[in-house]
Amino acid sequence: MLKEISSYAERLKVELLDFMEEYIYPAEKEVEEYLENPENRWTIPPIIEELKQKAKSQGLWNLFYADDNYGKGLTNYEYAYLCEIMGRSLIAPEIFNCNAPDTGNMEVLIKYGNEEQKQEWLTPLLEGEIRSIFSMTEPTIASSDATNIQTEIIRVGNEYVINGKKWWSTGAIDPRCKIAIVMGKTDPSAEPHKQQSMILVPMDTPGIEIKRPLKVFGYDHAPTGHAEVHYNNVRVPISNLLLGEGRGFEIAQGRLGPGRIHHAMRGIGQAERALDLLIDRAEEREAFGSKLIDKDVIRVQIAESRLEIEQARLLTLSTAHKIDQYGAKAARKEIAMIKIAVPRVALNVIDRAIEVHGGGGVSQDFPLAEHYAHARTLRIVDGPDQVHIRDIAKLEIRERRKNKSIKL
Amino acid sequence: MLKEISSYAERLKVELLDFMEEYIYPAEKEVEEYLENPENRWTIPPIIEELKQKAKSQGLWNLFYADDNYGKGLTNYEYAYLCEIMGRSLIAPEIFNCNAPDTGNMEVLIKYGNEEQKQEWLTPLLEGEIRSIFSMTEPTIASSDATNIQTEIIRVGNEYVINGKKWWSTGAIDPRCKIAIVMGKTDPSAEPHKQQSMILVPMDTPGIEIKRPLKVFGYDHAPTGHAEVHYNNVRVPISNLLLGEGRGFEIAQGRLGPGRIHHAMRGIGQAERALDLLIDRAEEREAFGSKLIDKDVIRVQIAESRLEIEQARLLTLSTAHKIDQYGAKAARKEIAMIKIAVPRVALNVIDRAIEVHGGGGVSQDFPLAEHYAHARTLRIVDGPDQVHIRDIAKLEIRERRKNKSIKL
Amino acid sequence: MLKEISSYAERLKVELLDFMEEYIYPAEKEVEEYLENPENRWTIPPIIEELKQKAKSQGLWNLFYADDNYGKGLTNYEYAYLCEIMGRSLIAPEIFNCNAPDTGNMEVLIKYGNEEQKQEWLTPLLEGEIRSIFSMTEPTIASSDATNIQTEIIRVGNEYVINGKKWWSTGAIDPRCKIAIVMGKTDPSAEPHKQQSMILVPMDTPGIEIKRPLKVFGYDHAPTGHAEVHYNNVRVPISNLLLGEGRGFEIAQGRLGPGRIHHAMRGIGQAERALDLLIDRAEEREAFGSKLIDKDVIRVQIAESRLEIEQARLLTLSTAHKIDQYGAKAARKEIAMIKIAVPRVALNVIDRAIEVHGGGGVSQDFPLAEHYAHARTLRIVDGPDQVHIRDIAKLEIRERRKNKSIKL
Amino acid sequence: MLKEISSYAERLKVELLDFMEEYIYPAEKEVEEYLENPENRWTIPPIIEELKQKAKSQGLWNLFYADDNYGKGLTNYEYAYLCEIMGRSLIAPEIFNCNAPDTGNMEVLIKYGNEEQKQEWLTPLLEGEIRSIFSMTEPTIASSDATNIQTEIIRVGNEYVINGKKWWSTGAIDPRCKIAIVMGKTDPSAEPHKQQSMILVPMDTPGIEIKRPLKVFGYDHAPTGHAEVHYNNVRVPISNLLLGEGRGFEIAQGRLGPGRIHHAMRGIGQAERALDLLIDRAEEREAFGSKLIDKDVIRVQIAESRLEIEQARLLTLSTAHKIDQYGAKAARKEIAMIKIAVPRVALNVIDRAIEVHGGGGVSQDFPLAEHYAHARTLRIVDGPDQVHIRDIAKLEIRERRKNKSIKL
Repeated sequence: MLKEISSYAERLKVELLDFMEEYIYPAEKEVEEYLENPENRWTIPPIIEELKQKAKSQGLWNLFYADDNYGKGLTNYEYAYLCEIMGRSLIAPEIFNCNAPDTGNMEVLIKYGNEEQKQEWLTPLLEGEIRSIFSMTEPTIASSDATNIQTEIIRVGNEYVINGKKWWSTGAIDPRCKIAIVMGKTDPSAEPHKQQSMILVPMDTPGIEIKRPLKVFGYDHAPTGHAEVHYNNVRVPISNLLLGEGRGFEIAQGRLGPGRIHHAMRGIGQAERALDLLIDRAEEREAFGSKLIDKDVIRVQIAESRLEIEQARLLTLSTAHKIDQYGAKAARKEIAMIKIAVPRVALNVIDRAIEVHGGGGVSQDFPLAEHYAHARTLRIVDGPDQVHIRDIAKLEIRERRKNKSIKL
Repeated sequence: MLKEISSYAERLKVELLDFMEEYIYPAEKEVEEYLENPENRWTIPPIIEELKQKAKSQGLWNLFYADDNYGKGLTNYEYAYLCEIMGRSLIAPEIFNCNAPDTGNMEVLIKYGNEEQKQEWLTPLLEGEIRSIFSMTEPTIASSDATNIQTEIIRVGNEYVINGKKWWSTGAIDPRCKIAIVMGKTDPSAEPHKQQSMILVPMDTPGIEIKRPLKVFGYDHAPTGHAEVHYNNVRVPISNLLLGEGRGFEIAQGRLGPGRIHHAMRGIGQAERALDLLIDRAEEREAFGSKLIDKDVIRVQIAESRLEIEQARLLTLSTAHKIDQYGAKAARKEIAMIKIAVPRVALNVIDRAIEVHGGGGVSQDFPLAEHYAHARTLRIVDGPDQVHIRDIAKLEIRERRKNKSIKL
Repeated sequence: MLKEISSYAERLKVELLDFMEEYIYPAEKEVEEYLENPENRWTIPPIIEELKQKAKSQGLWNLFYADDNYGKGLTNYEYAYLCEIMGRSLIAPEIFNCNAPDTGNMEVLIKYGNEEQKQEWLTPLLEGEIRSIFSMTEPTIASSDATNIQTEIIRVGNEYVINGKKWWSTGAIDPRCKIAIVMGKTDPSAEPHKQQSMILVPMDTPGIEIKRPLKVFGYDHAPTGHAEVHYNNVRVPISNLLLGEGRGFEIAQGRLGPGRIHHAMRGIGQAERALDLLIDRAEEREAFGSKLIDKDVIRVQIAESRLEIEQARLLTLSTAHKIDQYGAKAARKEIAMIKIAVPRVALNVIDRAIEVHGGGGVSQDFPLAEHYAHARTLRIVDGPDQVHIRDIAKLEIRERRKNKSIKL
Repeated sequence: MLKEISSYAERLKVELLDFMEEYIYPAEKEVEEYLENPENRWTIPPIIEELKQKAKSQGLWNLFYADDNYGKGLTNYEYAYLCEIMGRSLIAPEIFNCNAPDTGNMEVLIKYGNEEQKQEWLTPLLEGEIRSIFSMTEPTIASSDATNIQTEIIRVGNEYVINGKKWWSTGAIDPRCKIAIVMGKTDPSAEPHKQQSMILVPMDTPGIEIKRPLKVFGYDHAPTGHAEVHYNNVRVPISNLLLGEGRGFEIAQGRLGPGRIHHAMRGIGQAERALDLLIDRAEEREAFGSKLIDKDVIRVQIAESRLEIEQARLLTLSTAHKIDQYGAKAARKEIAMIKIAVPRVALNVIDRAIEVHGGGGVSQDFPLAEHYAHARTLRIVDGPDQVHIRDIAKLEIRERRKNKSIKL
């Protein structure tokens, strides 16, 4: 470890590893089987709520927030190590109340919510009693350029009236989901980055229509799911606005930094698990006269995977530390970098593990194909690679211009 | 076209393109919607059988077999062009009675079946009245090394008794599936490549247990599906054996050549469709001040896709022609090459198209994610890349040793 | 072979292979040793002129030109096979009078020269008595965009006065070099593609200054060399202009098609030789208990090399055939494609061979490092990849727009 | 910086950056021009010795050794930052007395030399008065497997008699080179890793034959050079043996760790310089209507370069820190990893910079092609990638076996 973590964080790490071994991995099949039953499909597997209580009672709860009022006072750097561990299982983050988009939404409420908003929505979210969605992406535009957004949030008297179509609103179908943060335009005539606002919309408000579940590859991700949600003349009081009109971009920016660390470290966790599975499988199987593990071509895959994972992890940890030291804005380039680097690595490693598992690799017998679909989607969420590559290059060129004194 | 195709093949090509436009693409959504209804899930969408009749009546039927008794007398080279067109849609091959594994199974029956076997199973397969499975891969071994296979086919009196567990038996759940070709060992004490035999097993034989449907990246591919099938003391008359005891490898080899051409050309078709979708999407969407189609990074993706597709197509066509000229055995190296090259290209192009489609790309709104899952699986079917790479290298080294006179 | 070549071409191929074995490969070391002597550095190794005579007397001469007045009447497709063979050795093309830039320059003279120009320069070039340069690229601009070119060709009375700085004028230092084709602007106020002209400039014209030899990865490529050439008030009669004022672009375009086939097929030849060397070396060396040739990781490299070479060759042959059938303009996209595809493949294969040769691979003991430097340069000559990628994408998008009727 | 460096190291870093700007970069052309003169080719450019004195007097000297008797008391982690800076110029390391193979040889003498050996050879090396070679690799075997080594070191009375052929003895032609460390077999009948010994051989000992200079691509790297050296009955006193008979492997292992950090960080320096050059060039040139720097495809290259460099640097720094904490043996896997990762990155970035520089990129006008040749060679020095990939995989599998308790 280039930089040590506190003994408290170290202890949490050990406890988390134990919890994963003892409860999470064994629960995966139970959850899957529960959900395979068509009657249960969009309901919550009881084991999930049980394990949430257990995790909460052990203090493995709300670890994500770098502050000790709401979280556990861990730095982003320290939490990164924990996040990697949780990332090894798709069911884990929720159990520790550290799952997206709830963490991001809690962060928005902590930073930009007023007391009333906090009390009504933040408290039950921190308790894991309700869930939330972040309704930003739209189906008919390139949402990576947020100025394209077409949803309207129009003030009419003491209310805002919301009209628009959103999709990829993860969690909207979950019966526990109670609140949406919706991004839309309050003033399409303002300058491009001042047109947008964010507003709180309770899920039981009339006019919210859960249009359909979206699939990711063939997965519907029940019971959380990803929904297309239409807002048809949805009315909420003006007090539901976050921060102020025209400040939607500001909130979106503020929401991003730590969230990207979380996504990235979970990606590292997935890659590590895939590598473990790859090795285990290669130890078991034999072909053409020797065990797979003794074949050089398999060893190349193991070594290349380790090379990729290690570098991506260091980049993410280093970015987390930079956020801790100088804030997310100073780490903009690094944050864009991990957004690109980690899903690539995860996809590469998982793909190699799939290959070694043969038919098993693409099937439901291993978590590989589902993890692959998840990691592939991460490349798209929050904008495709190209958007971040533009940002990295812009910042890089700017730095070189500053140091241009260096003659070569 | 480096080598022209006959005017008959050219005409079929035009008719096929028209059929795709007029019937196949529009039917895709209908099939999907039909199957979305849980009650229909494992039943046959009526449109499929309708279109089969239409295709048959137009002579677009059994085009795959390079002989004019059973097929249409097209060479492998000529059929390759048609196969690419069918490959653009996952529902198409069946409609023209050109879908795997039925084509391979028909080929086995034509080449190795006796008259009785042909009459009972080949005729209804050629008519598209029944479907069939090829039961070879097993869940507990590395099936890429076929000497690992553990299913037993033991002669007891006038019967063979079959015991074993197979998976990835594509089509086994399809209600129209009537016959299995099963590979197993008749003599585990024989030399490694003489232990195996293939046998015909009617699907209604007692002891056949359809254990469960397998998923491919979340897709169950209903109503065809991929099943784990257990053979528990399944008894069939000795006349059901194909070719003779110990000749299973020989049949497996004979089955492979043209089938790989088919898989490869369908992969090219998928890649072409993905490239069309990529361009169309980029024409529609705008971000950061210009249309996607006018951005250089998108153009790079288009050009690289064309580069990859064109080369892989030429390799496949050239292999098909070599089979036509010298037989599949002489084209062993080339056949192994297309097995590796084409799915890679298809995956690359589809992946680029997914990225340009953003969230839509991984969803059910476009065929991209499902095609990706399909192409990924093709890398595993008939053995992972490594197996074919070994073969290519072996043949390559052998050729160099022959020409070693060349001083460098 | 997807398309057969004539028996005449087939015979030339056999003769060429024999000539390479018997004369060219053995001469490589002799040439190298001759040039290692500092006194000989920029003089012609006698063996080169001897072998030229031998090749000429055997009819292995001027094979490149697809016409039987000047060449041997081979199609571009047929010549491609021969070109690959010559490409295996850097000293070979000159010996058969098929080396760049002379072939391109001869083509320019054949197509665009008048009788006088032909008699004075084409005849001795066809006889291999003199050599020539093509002076186009300039050191201070991005020459890939030819509208940037700054050399002036100004008419003054009955003369043109040429001023400008060129570099990468391959062959300028060769004592046999007698004539330059120079590109420059006759009218900077004309529309962008009508400003340029090409003109013949005898190398003994006053004002031509051979500034310095350029190196390619440390190689000076003596005695041919690549020179920076300054044209300082160089005066030639107006009859030296080719085709007419403002037609430089037209000539440049016309010069390109077949030349790219030649470069590409020579690249394939280099790749094939590298693969032969790789295999031969791996047969000889042993490490960690077995021969390199028996290690799977080496076999992967062999197989991947074969995969890449085969596809790139087919692409090039197919492009050559398209030029034969429809002319270079119709094959624009394909010509751009081989420009990108082949050097990549050559570099990949040579790089693998270097790795297998260890220290020997980067040294003068094998032709690998020099071939690498050569293939790397080919990626830059006639414009870097990005320029061609733009063209491919533009043509691809145009085709899709035409076929947009296809519903997906 | 994930882990801070001492204020002393920070100060050295600033001084080194200044020294590079003020003296090193401007001296590059002078050195090149001096050596271009054939009379000077194998002599030392006076500016080199001048700058050595200047660096020494400023305390920028022997920074490499992690100990304050011989070096400056910097940790490997701290020195890594300095090493990167020196790596930006091929002439720099020598000027700070931090160049290979002298650093490694000094380390061997410090760790394994006796007092007499130290006084005679270590002192002048530390003073920069003499230079040394490391004679290990042999031309006729795969030297990556050191058990293949064939040089004999046979005891005869009070002398060892050395016979063998070595190559890639960097520095052997340098007139200042006075001492060789030679590896050979003292006992070919011992167990494989006890057969080897290392011995000190003064360069003026009779029987040492500098056979020829080797080239790297086309570079001879005069005046240092890489030589093929034959040892023909070379006799030295038995006191010249290092550590003891049969302990050659032990010394070779001990020599490696920090040296790999040095190579790696210099590679990072080369990559950074290439990226600077790429950006600077793209700022200057224009094509097809806009500056290169404003083209998205160039920006992709900048961003991808930054992504690769940053990750490889973090991996190397983290490895250096692990060596500081736990020693080189504990960091074996990481040391193997940087050996592979960094040259790849350097090659990728330099190659992109070459492409942006067009013809200039492969020429002597920029350091890019020479740096490329250097980085390519680094992939081979100390064994090709495959050797290190084997080691990484072995250690990785071993770790997984230990943690196998983790159920997935």
